[in-house]
This record gives sequence, structure tokens and C-alpha cells, in this order.
Amino acid sequence: MTDQRIFNFNAGPAALPLKVLKDIQSSFLNFNQSGMSVTEISHRSVYFDDVINDAVERAKRLLKLDDRFHVLFLQGGASMQFAMMPMNLLSGDDSADFVNTGTWSTKAIKEAEILKKNFKVVASSEDKNFSYIPKDIEFSNDAKYVHLTSNNTIKGTQFNEFPDTNGIPILCDMSSDIFSRPLDMDKFGLIYAGAQKNLGPSGTCMVIIRQDVLDMANDDLPSMLKYSTYAAKNSMYNTPPCFGIYTIDLVLKWIEEDMGGLEKVEQHNIKKADLLYDCIDSSSFYKTTAEKYSRSLMNVTFRLPSEDLEKQFVAKAIDSGFGGLKGHRSVGGCRASIYNAATLESIQALVQFMEVFEKENK
Amino acid sequence: MTDQRIFNFNAGPAALPLKVLKDIQSSFLNFNQSGMSVTEISHRSVYFDDVINDAVERAKRLLKLDDRFHVLFLQGGASMQFAMMPMNLLSGDDSADFVNTGTWSTKAIKEAEILKKNFKVVASSEDKNFSYIPKDIEFSNDAKYVHLTSNNTIKGTQFNEFPDTNGIPILCDMSSDIFSRPLDMDKFGLIYAGAQKNLGPSGTCMVIIRQDVLDMANDDLPSMLKYSTYAAKNSMYNTPPCFGIYTIDLVLKWIEEDMGGLEKVEQHNIKKADLLYDCIDSSSFYKTTAEKYSRSLMNVTFRLPSEDLEKQFVAKAIDSGFGGLKGHRSVGGCRASIYNAATLESIQALVQFMEVFEKENK
Repeated sequence: MTDQRIFNFNAGPAALPLKVLKDIQSSFLNFNQSGMSVTEISHRSVYFDDVINDAVERAKRLLKLDDRFHVLFLQGGASMQFAMMPMNLLSGDDSADFVNTGTWSTKAIKEAEILKKNFKVVASSEDKNFSYIPKDIEFSNDAKYVHLTSNNTIKGTQFNEFPDTNGIPILCDMSSDIFSRPLDMDKFGLIYAGAQKNLGPSGTCMVIIRQDVLDMANDDLPSMLKYSTYAAKNSMYNTPPCFGIYTIDLVLKWIEEDMGGLEKVEQHNIKKADLLYDCIDSSSFYKTTAEKYSRSLMNVTFRLPSEDLEKQFVAKAIDSGFGGLKGHRSVGGCRASIYNAATLESIQALVQFMEVFEKENK
Repeated sequence: MTDQRIFNFNAGPAALPLKVLKDIQSSFLNFNQSGMSVTEISHRSVYFDDVINDAVERAKRLLKLDDRFHVLFLQGGASMQFAMMPMNLLSGDDSADFVNTGTWSTKAIKEAEILKKNFKVVASSEDKNFSYIPKDIEFSNDAKYVHLTSNNTIKGTQFNEFPDTNGIPILCDMSSDIFSRPLDMDKFGLIYAGAQKNLGPSGTCMVIIRQDVLDMANDDLPSMLKYSTYAAKNSMYNTPPCFGIYTIDLVLKWIEEDMGGLEKVEQHNIKKADLLYDCIDSSSFYKTTAEKYSRSLMNVTFRLPSEDLEKQFVAKAIDSGFGGLKGHRSVGGCRASIYNAATLESIQALVQFMEVFEKENK
């Protein structure tokens, strides 16, 4: 219970830039002089056209997307994409390659299985509890696509570079690191991200799909489960999640205008992560769970000498104004999620807190 | 462009209660003393548990739901439900009955067709341009369910009472009139509503499903497309649309505590609609498009003597602080959407405006 804003290290929904929150707040009863809240304007109005078009254009500029790419806004989170990708892109004998790097990759594989599609898991780090990103992967020559999870929020690992797939399009779940660094988009046929980590509130999923991938999609699917439905109507076949898209637009504006673009964002993220990993590496009290070359810049997972100490650590952190440091319920331990909106100041404060806690409990 | 809030007659997204908007605004940087925005709190936190559980309990109290009913929050709007209902509930030779009362009913039928399910359109008002609600419908004895659209936003018609289906569960799209009146829930196996008319922002779809309907659902579907996935996890199999659910909770609280429940809401809605229909009926200038016994309490559709006058009417209305009066792009004409949140004051002002416009243009 606090009158102050805390340092928020939640894994998702997660911290948003304070400037964005203040923008939303100040115009919440009268958006852009419309006389209505942004939650009350028609999605068929010029007010909302400006919002969605601005969000699309900013996404295109930030990722340097050429005209082959469609920027779409869907619903149902990444989990809905786990089903939509095989439904849209695999038919008959088609098969996809999956790389399994943790919980979310596993869930994506499960949905292809439920749909009785052909697939091959060509690499997995399950042998070491998903603590690393597989290297030197051999992909199938005839795979329709390769599915990856770029950043694994639960295990704290991340693809630091993306594999060469011999031109097979990569379909990539980037829910937890989209817009955190520049991307070589030539490798990707489709990237998608639930908004609630690096982009905005939960309930909106950004999907960026390349025309040649869209062209190979099945057409005999329910309207809301076809990518082409969204691409044909600028994401407005039916009423889109307007508040989510509006917030995403403000976040992308913040990335572009305040942070200075994705190169700058990446430098900032490296600086923040280095600070935290250095604190952990220089201590014998804290220990990271991810192998060094696979460490995530977004989710820093670590353990203390005992579960009891971890409980004390999380509780004391909350009392000291640091939220969200408990590890995912499936793995335990601790985790600091430091997405784009986490400030350097918050990491510095956390490091200081961790150093004091170590001294007091060693 | 205005510094004042306008009278908002949008069909959806639509006006929300000003009190709800002010509540959201005032706590937007620090929700419930959490030190975080409601858009930044974890869906696995006590903060959000309180929100979703409160929303479910309020919905149950307002609709007098017994323990057979699950109140769920999904995504994808009513359009996703058009596909999910046949996917979940029709298999093999199963067939459903549809009543076609307009654009949205037609879309629901289309999705059953895309999915190659068996169905019968047992009644339709297409013969008179969907200007009425069919009566004395003969339902199939062996239908698995009957699908209805309770209120037709585009044509301005509404089921004033629901047909007797001989115990066959009614599945009903109530996107535009849910919580606008009490319901005899014994008739319904499933009701659903995209939030953006009577409930909250777009991007959340409330689904209320009865246990016996849930029990007959197919199990071999993708996780996000199965009702059981949501029912088993209190709508939190994956991250739900938290901001939408939070707003819905505030709207339901407003209905319960400020409006005094659904009986009072219905009386208020009748009073508002009567005021507007009386204005139209007593004029030879304005003409409703719906047959009298089928008129909607939520969407009042009307025509002026010419399309040119309709254009002038809508333009002058905007200049005078009335928004959203243009009819749906598929039918033209004019429409005032007067959902729960539309105030009596706004209708009185509109009637006055209409009377003056008539005098000036007759």
C-alpha cells in the first residue's frame, strides 16, 4: 500500500513509460479534442484512423519494414498465435520446424500437435532445464517455416543472434523483446508479440506478417482466425482493441522520439542488464540460472542460497518499493524483468538493495 | 474540436458512464495503492484477482445467475464467438437453428457455414430488410442450440421477449443490450457480448456459459478456442485483457450501486427511448425504420425526408455537440445509440435539437 509509484519489475503485464501513462491520464476524458474518451470513440472515426495509422507507420519506421510487411493488431495474446500459425500455414503434408527453448515454445508446439499438423522439433534445450539457447541447428530442407521464441521470460534466456535457416521464413514469438533492439527483418516471415511486456496493456497482440507468408495461408478458416482478414481491413474487420492500439502508439512514439530509436534502446537495455548481471556475477550469494552466452537482456533470473532467503528477499523488496521480483510460479527463484520501460534508475536502486541484502544475509 | 465533452450517440465503441471514466483517470498512475497503473499490475496478483472476482460476482448478482453459470472474459469480440460456438458445440451430424435478424446474425451463420457445420435458418426478417423481429418461430426438435441476436444495432430492432424453444438452449449475441434489462436466464445456454457498447472498452468479450452447454463441448480444439480452457482457469489460462475487465467491473459497479440494478436500468432505458420515439412518431419529418413492436431500446434508427437533409442533420448535430448520429455505413440514414450510459439529459437535448432542425428544414 503506497502513495508512491514503485519500481516495477513485473514480467507482464509490466511497467510502461511514465510519460505514456501521464499522456493517457491527462486526455482520458477528452481525447484529441473529440469530446470523448479514447475508450468511447468509434473505430470508424478519423480520430481512431489517425491512431492506428500512426502506430503502423511508427512500427514500420522503427523496424525498417519495407512494403512486403503488414503490421496487424489481433487479440488473444501469443497463445492464440500458437494456434493460428499452424492453422493458416500448414496444410496436407506441410511440416514446420520448432526450436524448443522453454515454456512458451513448448506451448506453441502443443497447439500444432492438437491441430494434428506435421512438425519436427529440430532443437531443444530441455536437457539442461532450458538454461541455454541451442546453437548449430540443422533445419529441415522442406519445412514450411521455422518457429522460435526470441526471449524466454521464465528461464531468462534470449536469442542473441538468429540462426540461418537457408531462407525458410522464421515465425517468431517476440512477446517479451519486440522493439527492444534492431532486427534484420529479412529472416522473418512473421513476428508476433502480446503487448503486455514491451508494448502496452494486455489484450492486444501485434503481428507483423510478410506478404509471401500471407500468400501461402489457407483460406477455408473462420474469418477471425485468418491473417488475411486482418491484412485486408487494416486490422478492422471487426472492432479492434482500440485502447491497446492507442497505448501501443504512444509507446512507439516514446521509443522513436524520447528514446531515439531501436539502436539507442538496445544500448540502454545492454547498459541496464550489464549493471544487474555484474552485480550477480561479482557475488557468490546470487547466481544466474541462464548460461552466460544465452542470457536475456529482458528477464534476469537468479537464485539465492536457499528458498527461504528467496522468500525473505522478495518480501523485503516489496517493503522497499520493488515489485515483481518473484520468479515464475513454475520455476521459483527470483526474476527482474527489465523491459524497455524499466529505467536505469530503477536498476541502480535494485542493485543497491541487492548488495545490502547480501551483506545482511550472507 | 472541443474542450467540452459531447453528447455521444456512437453505436460502439460508445459512451461510458462519466463516473467510471473519472475513476479510471484519477487512479491511473497508482491503482488501489499498488504503486502501479492498472495496466502495469500482474494478472497473477491479488490486485487483479480482486478485480476479476468482483466483476464476476457483480455479473452473477445483476443477472441472478445460479451456480450453473460461468462468467468468462474472452477476446476477439462477438465475431470470434460466431466461430467458437459451432466449433465447440457442433460435431458430426449435430445441427443448430439460427434466426436471422440482420447483419450480425448473418455473420454468425456465415461462420457456421465456413466451418461446414449443419444448421438451419428457421426464421428471417430479410424479406422486409430486417425491419422486424420474427414471431411464432418453429424450431427444430433436434437442434443442439438456437442462435439469436437480441438487439440489432444496424437495423434498430430488438427481441422484446425471447421465444420458447422447448428447452433447447438459446445462444445469444447480446453485444448491444447486455445488462440493459433483467433476463430470464433459464432460457439461455450461452450469452455473449463484445464490451464496447454496454460494458466497457473494445477488446473484451463477456461470455456467460451454462455448465450443461460447457459439458457438451468438443475437446479436440486449440486451447484458446475452447470454452473449457477459460472456465477452468477463471479466464486466466493466459494473460486476459486486464484493462477491459477492470473497466467492466467499474461499469457493473455503477449499474449495481448508482443505477440500482437491472430493473431500474430497464425503466430508465424505456424512459429514454420513449422520449426519442415520441419525438419521431409525432413528426412527419422523421421516420423510424423498424416496425413498432420490434423497436430497439438501444439503437433508434430513423430517416429524414432526403439523404441530403440527413447529411445536413448529422453535420449540424456535430457542430451542436452531438456525436455518432450517422447511421451504419451499410444502411445510411441516422441512428442514435442510447445504451445504458446515455443520460436522460442527452436525449432531452437531442429531442430539442431535432425539433428545431425539423422546424428549420420542413
